[in-house]
Amino acid sequence: MPTVYVTAPPEEAQTIAETLVEERLAACVNRLSTTSTYRWDGEIHHDDEAVLLAKTTDDSYDDLVSRVREIHPYDVPCIERFDEAHVLESFADWRAESVD
Amino acid sequence: MPTVYVTAPPEEAQTIAETLVEERLAACVNRLSTTSTYRWDGEIHHDDEAVLLAKTTDDSYDDLVSRVREIHPYDVPCIERFDEAHVLESFADWRAESVD
Amino acid sequence: MPTVYVTAPPEEAQTIAETLVEERLAACVNRLSTTSTYRWDGEIHHDDEAVLLAKTTDDSYDDLVSRVREIHPYDVPCIERFDEAHVLESFADWRAESVD
Repeated sequence: MPTVYVTAPPEEAQTIAETLVEERLAACVNRLSTTSTYRWDGEIHHDDEAVLLAKTTDDSYDDLVSRVREIHPYDVPCIERFDEAHVLESFADWRAESVD
Repeated sequence: MPTVYVTAPPEEAQTIAETLVEERLAACVNRLSTTSTYRWDGEIHHDDEAVLLAKTTDDSYDDLVSRVREIHPYDVPCIERFDEAHVLESFADWRAESVD
Repeated sequence: MPTVYVTAPPEEAQTIAETLVEERLAACVNRLSTTSTYRWDGEIHHDDEAVLLAKTTDDSYDDLVSRVREIHPYDVPCIERFDEAHVLESFADWRAESVD
């Protein structure tokens, strides 16, 4: 099953997490504080952001990505998929039931 | 080698991390603060939790999962396995020696 | 594409993140606060550390690992590679352009 890794500004991160759960695109979302270091226009930046780890299913992955792109404030957001090698069966069942 | 992703209430998370290391089921555990968003009984909840990232071995993975299930306060805990594509050799050796 | 998972003391973590981005070994690095639980000399330790998640490319992975080993204060640092199953195409392009 896929965990989707998304970074977003702290203010928007909770809205994105809520939207994904409310619209049944993710069963749950873990939100963690981060500092992101990157280069933009030749300068090094350090921004406070949040990492979102959205727990979804194979079938809902494409819809989740489309929805994040619609509501995310960045033109080029970090959206990455990591596949779990195993998930506790009862938790996998709950995930599948929680997502459309 | 597997990294095991577990979420738990903040109070119990340190106990779980300590138990896994003391009982040589994990070489080390990284614990991070998170806010979890999920739906339960039709309502959206936001709970403060911890993410545990337990570094173990192929051979100890099943025992680690069984132990987490015994001591975890939830009936349906989030327990997920992510396999590393590569690990620095000296760190992999230390992990293997630290786990039974 | 690889995400490289590195743990480091909080003071050194920002320097490592900056070095990797400045030297174009990573497009961006997310830094998160963590408490690490591990055994050393028979004793259980709990240390404040940072988790670095460095976004790089297949071609730059080996150089990134070599550079982290040079500047990391530990003899046996935690350096692990997790491969993404999918990355948003525009973000993947930006990563590839940002890394040499």
